[in-house]
Amino acid sequence: MSEIVTAGILVIGDEILSGRTKDKNIGYIAEYLTNIGIDLKEVRVVSDDEADIVAALDALRARYTYVFTTGGIGPTHDDITADSVAKAFGVGIDHHPEVVARFRERFKDQELNEARLRMARIPDGGELIQSATILAPGFRIGNVIVMAGVPSIMQAMMDIIAPKLKSGVRMLSDTVKANAREGDIGTPLRAIQQNHPETIIGSYPFLDENGKPNTNLVVRSRDADKLAAAMNDVKIMLTGLNLPPR
Amino acid sequence: MSEIVTAGILVIGDEILSGRTKDKNIGYIAEYLTNIGIDLKEVRVVSDDEADIVAALDALRARYTYVFTTGGIGPTHDDITADSVAKAFGVGIDHHPEVVARFRERFKDQELNEARLRMARIPDGGELIQSATILAPGFRIGNVIVMAGVPSIMQAMMDIIAPKLKSGVRMLSDTVKANAREGDIGTPLRAIQQNHPETIIGSYPFLDENGKPNTNLVVRSRDADKLAAAMNDVKIMLTGLNLPPR
Repeated sequence: MSEIVTAGILVIGDEILSGRTKDKNIGYIAEYLTNIGIDLKEVRVVSDDEADIVAALDALRARYTYVFTTGGIGPTHDDITADSVAKAFGVGIDHHPEVVARFRERFKDQELNEARLRMARIPDGGELIQSATILAPGFRIGNVIVMAGVPSIMQAMMDIIAPKLKSGVRMLSDTVKANAREGDIGTPLRAIQQNHPETIIGSYPFLDENGKPNTNLVVRSRDADKLAAAMNDVKIMLTGLNLPPR
Repeated sequence: MSEIVTAGILVIGDEILSGRTKDKNIGYIAEYLTNIGIDLKEVRVVSDDEADIVAALDALRARYTYVFTTGGIGPTHDDITADSVAKAFGVGIDHHPEVVARFRERFKDQELNEARLRMARIPDGGELIQSATILAPGFRIGNVIVMAGVPSIMQAMMDIIAPKLKSGVRMLSDTVKANAREGDIGTPLRAIQQNHPETIIGSYPFLDENGKPNTNLVVRSRDADKLAAAMNDVKIMLTGLNLPPR
């Protein structure tokens, strides 16, 4: 069985913490990683503050196989992600010649100002994440993958970097609608979880199409047989319920 | 000038990290706190794992005035928030008599099973956050406010607890559309930020209604006069731009 590959996400930006911008990247990256067999274990959101970024980055990169950051790689003074990553890794940072060359093709001289050149600053040893449609590149250094905050650009960067990552045995998942309230099934469900320790059983209440309280039960495992055995016990339990009408 | 009141958010749940459920609470709470003068400084998302929850809770509650948690207070085995909070505070946890009494009014004896009673478990010293429309209560202990993960219930809990919180001097904010690309204004904007150290100037690129790259500039400050002075300099800078057509 191959190793388990883990990840953390670090979202960087005052605008997320003030509520002005609603993050759309966490959910996207979470689903993406699940689909390629990488376990997302933790997310942090911090402000545009170098000390906070470095501290969060160091905590996450020490703990997980990969860390994905979003935000703070644009041309303005509040874009300090690349400098913070260089500081965390204790390496220098300078204008990357390949990025500068691309900018020279793309911008007139008067447009290639100090602010735009800021987007070419890459920590020493960083590997670029770029394509024809991406203006300011992301980069990878060590186990840290630095991406844009704008969702469409971040998504393009994920597609570029994903094939280069280790992936683990994919977590499999199966869902059944309980047609019961969560409180009706919590006790037998706990017993099933205890009998199937190599599965993770989750219980998620929702209001169904008739406006009635209902529950999705999700069984997850890296082993298809163990998943099926646990799901079988869940279905037997549900069939045997003798509930008053909801 | 009254003190600055800060907060962290701890989102608890495997379903967020797997991408199965897209979080809607972070953005809501972030905006809510900004509106009542509390500065959200950090967000963490962790799995349904007691050690991870306790570690994140201890880090956040030591650092910020308040910590808001969402998720993990339902009736099933994966709902371990209350127990984790009790462990972090080093206090006991038991069925809260007031919650049990309400459950006895609400449920028939056969329905008041072990799973449902689990929702009545409150750490010793916890103050209930409840109303007629909330089945499983949230609670507050010390500077930690424990809320449901279901957005509508979490929102009702915020309305109950918010009036009881300290709030600071509200952060004021003003926005102007630059009608310029971020890279066109990054250099003068940095100078304005340096001249107005008691403001926070943010730059947020977007595609406008004509499909052209544009930028929102946001000036924030607790001091209305300082905010106005910085915004005035931003507008003078924008008026003086001599840009090629976008």
